[in-house]
Amino acid sequence: MEVIRSNFKDNLSKVCEAIEEADFLAIDGEFSGISDGPSVSALTNGFDTPEERYQKLKKHSMDFLLFQFGLCTFKYDHTEEKYIMKSFNFYIFPKPFNRSSPDVKFVCQSSSIDFLANQGFDFNKVFRNGIPYLNQEEERQLREQYDEKRSQANGAGSLSYISPNTTKCPVTIPEDQKKFIEKVVEQIEELLKNEENESLELEPCTGSVSEFKERYIVISKVDDEERKRREQQKQAKEQEELNDAVGFSRVVHAIANSGKLVIGHNMLLDVMHTIHQFYCPLPDNLVKLTLLCFNILNSYFVSRLLDTKLMASTQPFKEIINNTSLAELEKRLKEIPFSPPKVESAEGFPSYDTSSEQLHEAGYDAYITGLCFISMANFLGSFLSPPKNHVSARSKLIEPFFNKLFLMRVMDIPYLNLEGPDLQPKRDHVLHVTFPKEWKTSDLYQLFSAFGNIQVSWIDDTSAFVSLSQPEQVQIGNWSRSFRRNKTFIVPARTSTVGKRSMSPIQEETGSDDMEEGEDPEYNQTDSCAEPLPDSKKRAKKFKKIKKEQVPAGKNSSNEIFEVPETW
Amino acid sequence: MEVIRSNFKDNLSKVCEAIEEADFLAIDGEFSGISDGPSVSALTNGFDTPEERYQKLKKHSMDFLLFQFGLCTFKYDHTEEKYIMKSFNFYIFPKPFNRSSPDVKFVCQSSSIDFLANQGFDFNKVFRNGIPYLNQEEERQLREQYDEKRSQANGAGSLSYISPNTTKCPVTIPEDQKKFIEKVVEQIEELLKNEENESLELEPCTGSVSEFKERYIVISKVDDEERKRREQQKQAKEQEELNDAVGFSRVVHAIANSGKLVIGHNMLLDVMHTIHQFYCPLPDNLVKLTLLCFNILNSYFVSRLLDTKLMASTQPFKEIINNTSLAELEKRLKEIPFSPPKVESAEGFPSYDTSSEQLHEAGYDAYITGLCFISMANFLGSFLSPPKNHVSARSKLIEPFFNKLFLMRVMDIPYLNLEGPDLQPKRDHVLHVTFPKEWKTSDLYQLFSAFGNIQVSWIDDTSAFVSLSQPEQVQIGNWSRSFRRNKTFIVPARTSTVGKRSMSPIQEETGSDDMEEGEDPEYNQTDSCAEPLPDSKKRAKKFKKIKKEQVPAGKNSSNEIFEVPETW
Repeated sequence: MEVIRSNFKDNLSKVCEAIEEADFLAIDGEFSGISDGPSVSALTNGFDTPEERYQKLKKHSMDFLLFQFGLCTFKYDHTEEKYIMKSFNFYIFPKPFNRSSPDVKFVCQSSSIDFLANQGFDFNKVFRNGIPYLNQEEERQLREQYDEKRSQANGAGSLSYISPNTTKCPVTIPEDQKKFIEKVVEQIEELLKNEENESLELEPCTGSVSEFKERYIVISKVDDEERKRREQQKQAKEQEELNDAVGFSRVVHAIANSGKLVIGHNMLLDVMHTIHQFYCPLPDNLVKLTLLCFNILNSYFVSRLLDTKLMASTQPFKEIINNTSLAELEKRLKEIPFSPPKVESAEGFPSYDTSSEQLHEAGYDAYITGLCFISMANFLGSFLSPPKNHVSARSKLIEPFFNKLFLMRVMDIPYLNLEGPDLQPKRDHVLHVTFPKEWKTSDLYQLFSAFGNIQVSWIDDTSAFVSLSQPEQVQIGNWSRSFRRNKTFIVPARTSTVGKRSMSPIQEETGSDDMEEGEDPEYNQTDSCAEPLPDSKKRAKKFKKIKKEQVPAGKNSSNEIFEVPETW
Repeated sequence: MEVIRSNFKDNLSKVCEAIEEADFLAIDGEFSGISDGPSVSALTNGFDTPEERYQKLKKHSMDFLLFQFGLCTFKYDHTEEKYIMKSFNFYIFPKPFNRSSPDVKFVCQSSSIDFLANQGFDFNKVFRNGIPYLNQEEERQLREQYDEKRSQANGAGSLSYISPNTTKCPVTIPEDQKKFIEKVVEQIEELLKNEENESLELEPCTGSVSEFKERYIVISKVDDEERKRREQQKQAKEQEELNDAVGFSRVVHAIANSGKLVIGHNMLLDVMHTIHQFYCPLPDNLVKLTLLCFNILNSYFVSRLLDTKLMASTQPFKEIINNTSLAELEKRLKEIPFSPPKVESAEGFPSYDTSSEQLHEAGYDAYITGLCFISMANFLGSFLSPPKNHVSARSKLIEPFFNKLFLMRVMDIPYLNLEGPDLQPKRDHVLHVTFPKEWKTSDLYQLFSAFGNIQVSWIDDTSAFVSLSQPEQVQIGNWSRSFRRNKTFIVPARTSTVGKRSMSPIQEETGSDDMEEGEDPEYNQTDSCAEPLPDSKKRAKKFKKIKKEQVPAGKNSSNEIFEVPETW
């Protein structure tokens, strides 16, 4: 269902009902751009830490507009053994509410706009009929404005009818208008004197501006009761205006407050944009983001997030799924050993035809994201004894995937963890290389030709990470001597990054029983370069506290079958 | 005529022909926003100097996109005594030319987008079918890329068939593809050995990606002649690609090179955007802009610009025209003492109906700007003896208006002068006032209540210019003592601005005979605060030089009737 400014209010209750009754929700966003700084390949360096990736996306991706939001709700019908889905495709635009409301500026990236244009994206619908929104601070300010106006009106009767935004002073009446004004004053005095007269219609006085010719001022005498009635009417109208201005943010609040499982495909940017645009500016760092996501600041995405791209890239799917792009994944999951999910549109909701793709319409993408989740969840059921055909969104089988967001193109850190500390893979085999800006990948291959296969991750024009296939090839100290020619400097990435780059220097106390990561020796070893910082210690403690509160009992039982691995 | 990406190439010669044959051109642009910083009222402070205004627009308005360009050409038919007009409405979008071409990011301002949306602006046409463009530097770089590729091809035969962007090294052939590759090698060796075989079609080898299934590689043997022919073909194709990429900029070049009079209404932003987007980054300051406009850097707007808003705000029009907004001006100029111009669309060109307004479509706005110019120019003819009904775009009567761009909302400097130094009105009666940020205009009125009518021009939250009606009320030195309360500081603007604000401290040598400004004692008096800076002196000299070259003989004769005054 398409939801735009003109039908939003009429359909909001339908949206909220769909969220309330759902077993899980799938979301997707379309944006006006991806990066206003580095190219996408530099934005997603293969050796980014989660913190670095977060910082880059926060810095370079948040000035774009999330202008289409897809929401697809899935409710399981146990009798019919199928899902009933309701799909909503929202068009979003920050239409200024009034003259004093924020006049949002957003960036468009030509390549992204061109891409969407080629997909038939309807920009007119966004700009002419997009649903407005306010973040929490803007909503608070607007509410305050209304409250202030109201308290003025209640407190001092004489002020209650002053025009809004009165910043002007008495003006000198121009000679040619004096007669007109004097006549008006006489008429009003007459009205006040004469008890029988109830109201007075003044002459139109905006001569030249044609559209106002039919508008004039009516002055009415009202008693206390009538005045109260009018005040109440005005308040109700103001409340409605306020709701209209909050607009699409109400849908986001409904999703957050529902506590439902929220599915997305490669959803990190969607989550960041959703928080940034409809809730509050993004926190300074990942720790704060995690806290924010965990209901520290009111409930917001309090629920659980699940990223289907991460799920598809993880055992047991990793081995049997080659291409995790949404379209390819959806196709793959219709084939053996998977079964296409049984999903029907709810009555009155249009159905999507997956054979004629409508990719990159947010509502459709949310829909097939949901399909992918169902197929994969059900596949997990086949590992149980006895096997189960239907695995619900509440099943412990999918808990290992909760609140882990896929990190695109990172070589050795699969996800950004919203429930605990980030993974710290060994990077002994990774070198940080600086070189003249004329260099191409082939020059690097040549330089390292003695070391067999290498992987190159460009940082910028003059530096890259080079990972060797065998860590033992890296002998610290030799590099800087043997290769310091052609303005080329090579240092092991680990050493070089401690000062310059944040490599998630968080150390967990060994032996802590609630840290899964502690079980894998590869991620638990002490790195002599990375002393735990005071902040990280605090962070670790916070995580432990969160974990103790959040980790559901019996989680380990599901982990017996499989778990989200810490390395790929 | 609507010109978009898909019909641009077919119509370009028509556009160029229209420009070539025209007596004058009218232009107008629509942008994705106005200010990415201060509100429009702060952006256009009433006491901005031309330099300040230029700097503010350069800083806060250039990240928006000029996405619709209106061009209307007018050619006078002496036999029929009417103008024949051709109107073009271009949709513009920086569609990336290829993967290595610039990926333009532009800002949209919600209020501007909402305004255009309400006018029925077609955003889909812009984003799906806008004409691309390159500025001069981008064009040069692309040309260089092509030249480099070509010289590689000519120089070393062995390199001529290397794929573009070859940065990869030899790859290891995976086991499962070895057989396929070996077979291909065999086939090619066979082709080379056997003289009879002319070409070889390889098997398609991109298995899984369905859209490429029908594509395969053909290897042909060619002799020198055939090879040359193919090279030429390739070069012709590259030249066409380059032309396509330069796109709409070719129209702008055609306008600039035509030397025709270019009319706009309130055209400062249009001119700045046109230079910035299609030519080069805007110069640091007005002096350089002036030089740029004067053909110092190749020919660009070498011709003459005329701003109809300035014209309508100037004697003899000022007294009889109340509202100089484009729509109102067009209406006014149909009435006595003006005569509606006789204008017809050229054959095959659609005509506009001015009774059903299509305001804010760039082509229409350009059209009625042209109408306004014709009416006003013809009106000037009525002052001649004998009176003339038709005043051409080449008439000396309109020369006083050349290259002076209207400065919106500046109280005492009507225009930005592209032909000479900026005007320097007396600002003895203007005070610079600083105050707590809670203050409103009414507080200022109260503060100055003893001084009768004042005018307030807000600078920001905590400062404003206040102009008193009588200069003698300002007694320097008293202000700071008597008003330094409530955190309020008042100083004469002139003094305060020398350090902080650039008030165009350019002094012309008195008695110079080619400086019109010298004739008005009000603008020629020595300001003790403003010593001419070395730069300004240079600037003044440059102006004199330009003036001597540019001012046509006999200019004074037209000035006898009227001239653009230096103050309003």
